[in-house]
Amino acid sequence: MSSLARKAAENLAALREKKPLIHNITNFVVMNYTANALLAMGASPVMAHAINEVEDMVGLAGALVLNIGTLTDDWMASMIRAGNKATEQKKPIILDPVGSGATSLRTHAAKKIIRKNRISVIRGNASEILSLRNQDSQTKGVDSIHSVDEAAQTAKLLAEELKTTLAITGPVDLITDGRRVVRVSNGHPLMGYVTGTGCTATVTIGAFLAVDEDPVSAATTALAFFGLAGEAAGQKAAAPGSFMIALLDALYTISPEALEAGCKIEENQK
Amino acid sequence: MSSLARKAAENLAALREKKPLIHNITNFVVMNYTANALLAMGASPVMAHAINEVEDMVGLAGALVLNIGTLTDDWMASMIRAGNKATEQKKPIILDPVGSGATSLRTHAAKKIIRKNRISVIRGNASEILSLRNQDSQTKGVDSIHSVDEAAQTAKLLAEELKTTLAITGPVDLITDGRRVVRVSNGHPLMGYVTGTGCTATVTIGAFLAVDEDPVSAATTALAFFGLAGEAAGQKAAAPGSFMIALLDALYTISPEALEAGCKIEENQK
Amino acid sequence: MSSLARKAAENLAALREKKPLIHNITNFVVMNYTANALLAMGASPVMAHAINEVEDMVGLAGALVLNIGTLTDDWMASMIRAGNKATEQKKPIILDPVGSGATSLRTHAAKKIIRKNRISVIRGNASEILSLRNQDSQTKGVDSIHSVDEAAQTAKLLAEELKTTLAITGPVDLITDGRRVVRVSNGHPLMGYVTGTGCTATVTIGAFLAVDEDPVSAATTALAFFGLAGEAAGQKAAAPGSFMIALLDALYTISPEALEAGCKIEENQK
Repeated sequence: MSSLARKAAENLAALREKKPLIHNITNFVVMNYTANALLAMGASPVMAHAINEVEDMVGLAGALVLNIGTLTDDWMASMIRAGNKATEQKKPIILDPVGSGATSLRTHAAKKIIRKNRISVIRGNASEILSLRNQDSQTKGVDSIHSVDEAAQTAKLLAEELKTTLAITGPVDLITDGRRVVRVSNGHPLMGYVTGTGCTATVTIGAFLAVDEDPVSAATTALAFFGLAGEAAGQKAAAPGSFMIALLDALYTISPEALEAGCKIEENQK
Repeated sequence: MSSLARKAAENLAALREKKPLIHNITNFVVMNYTANALLAMGASPVMAHAINEVEDMVGLAGALVLNIGTLTDDWMASMIRAGNKATEQKKPIILDPVGSGATSLRTHAAKKIIRKNRISVIRGNASEILSLRNQDSQTKGVDSIHSVDEAAQTAKLLAEELKTTLAITGPVDLITDGRRVVRVSNGHPLMGYVTGTGCTATVTIGAFLAVDEDPVSAATTALAFFGLAGEAAGQKAAAPGSFMIALLDALYTISPEALEAGCKIEENQK
Repeated sequence: MSSLARKAAENLAALREKKPLIHNITNFVVMNYTANALLAMGASPVMAHAINEVEDMVGLAGALVLNIGTLTDDWMASMIRAGNKATEQKKPIILDPVGSGATSLRTHAAKKIIRKNRISVIRGNASEILSLRNQDSQTKGVDSIHSVDEAAQTAKLLAEELKTTLAITGPVDLITDGRRVVRVSNGHPLMGYVTGTGCTATVTIGAFLAVDEDPVSAATTALAFFGLAGEAAGQKAAAPGSFMIALLDALYTISPEALEAGCKIEENQK
């Protein structure tokens, strides 16, 4: 049993004991589902985006989740203000750059949030994460990555460039802070048929960051937990509607011991 | 069988027969779930917040629900305008002061809505409700309440001060208009693991207010119904995802007779 | 087996193969459910409403869904801009005039969207659709329609007047472009107890329009598919909560062959 598997169990137990408040400024599509996911796993969600309230709310929270789906300029201003407060108070921020790379609004927004705040973890799929490169970046584009090793190398360079921890999710998740590289292979194909599973992975990392100061460890253990919940749901349900409900159930039901036993985490020794 | 239990059955039957339109200006997190809850129990929900539309919509509605979760200033303006129209048309308004006491934006908003409108019922948890006191209030803070009797006394004073009916929900719900004090002990612990169950209790009261002019009776019978639905859901489901679906099912399935039989309502004789 | 039943099977197969991106500017209540419905049936949903992003997003999409529930003026501006881009790029637009006729904001908004864009299909219930008539319209009001034949005649005139295809949903759906008249009688009564089933019918038509250029055929086959999914859900569930989940499951599970066999489509020979 790896130390990260043991850490996953500890984080889940700590989360359920401390019930940290997770402040979300997120998109309209997933608000309900991510709030329910946070409640089910044992955290306390709050969604608040008013520019004249976000600083107060950050003050009460254990972590701040910024998610740029359904973004508009006024929400962007609230994200920046909340992020500044969290940065000032040394509270963890996790960014989900939904759709970055697809439209210039999203790409610019994600880059601005990164530039203006100290982000603990960025969680996205490969194309979203790679869209965050600077113009003169040394990292490769998605199409020029041909192997698992190249992907890891690219991710490490980008994490260094952005001075943060990246959690790149897919069939196998890759987590890196530029030095350590960890892979998580928990998960289930039906997760791709439920809206907001990526965003829910993000809030899970947010919840784990509220009880684990190490971004690589928090992101890794959160993704193992969320992926294992997907596996449990896949044993109960064979279609997306019942799967998304079983996934919420699993976030509530999985014990720290079951998580430690079910983690599929591999840390790269290189 | 108490007269309030019989009234609960009558209200539920009337709701399903008349299908009143319930106009909601509410938060983004719970819109879908509360709309589904209203439909399931037999009402007709509409969500509308445009400042140039809310008066028209109030004109069509049987009750107005104001909920300050995810509040911003422009939504506040719509709430005030809608509330004024409902006050003018003598339509019942129910307020859910989500997060009042947690941030000053929320506390000020809730107090302003109360000041500017005739509110039939305010539904919240104990700390939200106590945050609504005026600065020179005679009522005690949450921390200084040490017994059930003190809680009732405090609630009665506050209801008088605010000139409304308070519905303070928790393991046991307390409803008072300053004279009558009623307790409802229906409910299930998993309700705390689903986002928006408080907000759904609120819309249930809104629906009952559309068929029952007496705020104490409407709030009491609505909370007994909603709590009983929670109990029914708890017999079907052991985790939050399946519980929240079973709860919607129960709102549709529970008959007026089953409600009358299952109510746990106790009116204080003092 | 009618040619439209065969076309339904072909459209569903094409949808699952091509996974077109469906761009939605829609209301807060249904965003999550319609996104999940689109994913379950095999499409790729995106919700985006920022005025400075919608043109980019239309450029990536196979169809544009405009839905005026929870509308405000700023969302209206985004809808018009997105619609103009889609019109310019000859991409199909489907309009859901939620609540048109209930408030003047909604009626004016729906009419403006129709006037300013080339709409492929408008999907609504009878009163919403009839509210779209011009002041000097020759078509009758809802109250003056006394037979199925009169309804069809009225719908044909209105489709001609609005130069679009109308999909009027109810116990029996009626689809017409002013010349052809098709009826679909798939469906289930519990669909009326789940919020956003009308909006979900609309996005289903949007998805089918992305793979079928003929608006009458796309709307007809989409409504048969969605109605058949309702029938399948009704065999699994007897109350609205579990029904809405079973409905998502059915959108994923129904095969093209089952759709062809289960279609209840009748084309008027007149």
